[in-house]
Amino acid sequence: MLAAGLGIGGTPRPPGDSPIPAPGRLGPAALSALTEIVGRANVVDDDIARVAHCRGKSTSDLLRIRGGDVVDAPDAVVLPGSHDEVIGVLTCCAASGIAVVPFGGGTSVVGGLAPEAADFDGMIALDLRRMQELLSVDRASMTATMQPGLRGPQAEALLAGHGLTLGHFPQSFEHASIGGYAATRSSGQASAGYGRFDQMVVGVLLATPTGSWRLGRGPANAAGPDLRQLVLGSEGAFGVITELVLAVREAPSARKYEGWQLPSFTSGVELLRNLAQHDLPPTIVRLSDEVETASGLANATGVGEKTAGACYLLIGFEGTVTEVAAHRDAASGHLSAAGAVRLGGELGDEWLAGRFHGPYLRDALLDAGGFAETVETVSSWADLPALYAAVRSAITSAIPGPVLVLCHISHIYRGGASLYFTVICRQPDDPVAYWDHAKRAITDAILLSGGSVTHHHGIGTVHRPWLAAEIGDVGIRVLAAIKREIDPTGVMNPGVLVARDSVGQ
Amino acid sequence: MLAAGLGIGGTPRPPGDSPIPAPGRLGPAALSALTEIVGRANVVDDDIARVAHCRGKSTSDLLRIRGGDVVDAPDAVVLPGSHDEVIGVLTCCAASGIAVVPFGGGTSVVGGLAPEAADFDGMIALDLRRMQELLSVDRASMTATMQPGLRGPQAEALLAGHGLTLGHFPQSFEHASIGGYAATRSSGQASAGYGRFDQMVVGVLLATPTGSWRLGRGPANAAGPDLRQLVLGSEGAFGVITELVLAVREAPSARKYEGWQLPSFTSGVELLRNLAQHDLPPTIVRLSDEVETASGLANATGVGEKTAGACYLLIGFEGTVTEVAAHRDAASGHLSAAGAVRLGGELGDEWLAGRFHGPYLRDALLDAGGFAETVETVSSWADLPALYAAVRSAITSAIPGPVLVLCHISHIYRGGASLYFTVICRQPDDPVAYWDHAKRAITDAILLSGGSVTHHHGIGTVHRPWLAAEIGDVGIRVLAAIKREIDPTGVMNPGVLVARDSVGQ
Repeated sequence: MLAAGLGIGGTPRPPGDSPIPAPGRLGPAALSALTEIVGRANVVDDDIARVAHCRGKSTSDLLRIRGGDVVDAPDAVVLPGSHDEVIGVLTCCAASGIAVVPFGGGTSVVGGLAPEAADFDGMIALDLRRMQELLSVDRASMTATMQPGLRGPQAEALLAGHGLTLGHFPQSFEHASIGGYAATRSSGQASAGYGRFDQMVVGVLLATPTGSWRLGRGPANAAGPDLRQLVLGSEGAFGVITELVLAVREAPSARKYEGWQLPSFTSGVELLRNLAQHDLPPTIVRLSDEVETASGLANATGVGEKTAGACYLLIGFEGTVTEVAAHRDAASGHLSAAGAVRLGGELGDEWLAGRFHGPYLRDALLDAGGFAETVETVSSWADLPALYAAVRSAITSAIPGPVLVLCHISHIYRGGASLYFTVICRQPDDPVAYWDHAKRAITDAILLSGGSVTHHHGIGTVHRPWLAAEIGDVGIRVLAAIKREIDPTGVMNPGVLVARDSVGQ
Repeated sequence: MLAAGLGIGGTPRPPGDSPIPAPGRLGPAALSALTEIVGRANVVDDDIARVAHCRGKSTSDLLRIRGGDVVDAPDAVVLPGSHDEVIGVLTCCAASGIAVVPFGGGTSVVGGLAPEAADFDGMIALDLRRMQELLSVDRASMTATMQPGLRGPQAEALLAGHGLTLGHFPQSFEHASIGGYAATRSSGQASAGYGRFDQMVVGVLLATPTGSWRLGRGPANAAGPDLRQLVLGSEGAFGVITELVLAVREAPSARKYEGWQLPSFTSGVELLRNLAQHDLPPTIVRLSDEVETASGLANATGVGEKTAGACYLLIGFEGTVTEVAAHRDAASGHLSAAGAVRLGGELGDEWLAGRFHGPYLRDALLDAGGFAETVETVSSWADLPALYAAVRSAITSAIPGPVLVLCHISHIYRGGASLYFTVICRQPDDPVAYWDHAKRAITDAILLSGGSVTHHHGIGTVHRPWLAAEIGDVGIRVLAAIKREIDPTGVMNPGVLVARDSVGQ
């Protein structure tokens, strides 16, 4: 269908030769100073390491790497083993004018790993993979203290040893780190049940170029502004998260995922709103619109093919056997009222098996001469229908040829929900410039229709032009003032989140 | 009992003559400029208005007013009618070096209304009482847009017209304003069920000396740090909250409040932790320790008198009839397991009737030659037992004579709970200095034992010496940097939250 309808095909474009970055800019003095802090084995500047730390995982990032463009590769990769080593590296870099990119799983899709550092005396990727310990578990308070370099599966495996879970499963789960989750306000597939990652952060330790910053006393307090919320979402622009105290839950002993068929996207949206506002959100929810359902990408067994206009809904419940039964029971009245028809458990299991596969399909599509990107936003329930229409319309206007626009909702709140669009089309001649252009028109439409510039991907460099529309001029000035105070030489991820001209650095 | 055990009594101390503040410092030019912005009727500088806006409602505040000390009275009270008028007043004051105290209900107990403004060219109280409209209701998103000057009862009455409620009932409910709730991160008696006030704020508009700041797109997003959390708890130091978009709920159609008797405070704490961590918090919870129970102040029918060492627990459920029944049912197993014995519904009703009376009892006690103050904190469940013991011990050490120390828990979270102590003793010769001294020792003990300096009273000037222990030197620098950026002349509530020497203003 994709090949026929979108004109994808012909000669596949194979990846080019392995790209080689330009020689690193770090002089022997800087390399030696860094080596003294973290040890010889933990300063790496070979081509493979540098290319592996070049940018993130947006489609444009993949296409540029495929095209041999590694101009953003760091000059070296530094692997600290402790908070004190991170402080040492930041102090050294601040004194030497070397830019620092904190690097967790490398899965940013908004340019969060591509700072504007050409005029610095070098740039290092600060890879946190050595800091991967579960430091302690407080069962009474249900918190775990963890290091930032832990990847999703590692963190879950360590917690499983205590019968616990974070319940945070973003699509990037297999690669992304918990430090990255916190730095970007990540939201996982089970956010309806377990909450967003920012809601899990009880305490945080930040290493900055001007000192250590530990925050979090008690689960909540009134000791002035909640400054943890400045660290969450700071995207490496203020410092490096070196420790997190995270709320954990009992690992669920029962899970029940089911597929349902809804008469329309509109009826599904109403259903989700009702569940959220009656405090009955399932642990996991994913409602596909008519096009995503019909495309067969929502589920492999083709709900939409059987019933024109129908929409596929996956809902999952996790907890104890009693809780799962009680929550399913409480939701059932709302499902019936919405005209939902149960499709059986196997569709849920199928989703579970493939829950992290989406990004890999994109690689196959690129190989075949196709193009895929995603757009995500969030708004109040009241604004959601108009926002949905405006984004669909902006996408089809911005992309001249045949284009497939799929949408689903997978994060719901009492006040509103996210919208996640997948855009698939034939690969144009200059896909990077092409998407840049389309992205601008689409994001303008999002802001005009009351949506946020991003529900869970972050700002980075890609979304930065719309940040003033989101947080106002005062907000831009406040972020700049904080950055100047904490990072006076501006070495922390320059240009990411905070525009360099706003901060005068 | 109070009279006999604590030596309270003898000749009651009547309040002194009505105090008269010194003449206002505002010159005719300043008064005329302010009048031009808000109108003649809305600039008031008579003695009664000035004294009514002098400080807040801590016991020291009451004692100083009774003693005729009104040195902190504002030079005038200004009553703006709109966001634009607030912007006008702040711009005028910033240009003229006039300090501004945003004034809602006047119920601060931490010196939040007593800025350090002696060296300014005057000080005005910006009373927001004219801004008291419910601007709009969004039923789909379950939000209400409200003006900051609405008092608790006014806000609830307006929402009740739509079948809605905020569910926010702090002890100051009858006087406090919703702008004040937001500016101080208030937490109400029903926080277990409806959440803290900061969790209700979806959007906020702040008037600052350097412009308007509107925040809040969607219920949650990843557009950098959540800057709403800088406004919440900012205590007037950055600007004036002029509009709030608040999450609302259906007004409950059923309510069930019940008294229970627990074998001990320890068993009660375990019960509350279990309820919170199994996602079964009642809407309202209040667990009194053995002393508060025995004192008869937890309930009028004297649980503790009947059963030595027992503790009184009030729990309340609100919602639909079905919800109340389901939640009571789900909690019942935990109550039985904790050895709780039901005392019957009338004790709950008695609490409901007297829920806002606590502060008024204090006035009667002061009249009778007694002294009462409160201390509150919050910690993780793991730290709570040691914190409880440390605070009790610090209070009895700091107060030489007979002293009654009561404690209850009324705010519970998955990760921990608040502790609220009431201290009652004979009124010493210089009660203000006496409490200052005791407060220092008690607060030192709180910080050393892992507690927060405040769960819901805020920082103001009283708690400011411990803010660095709470948020670190980096936190102090960040708050100062934000203040310098937003309020470069430092006129906004000077010395409240942000120490003047930290900001160089």
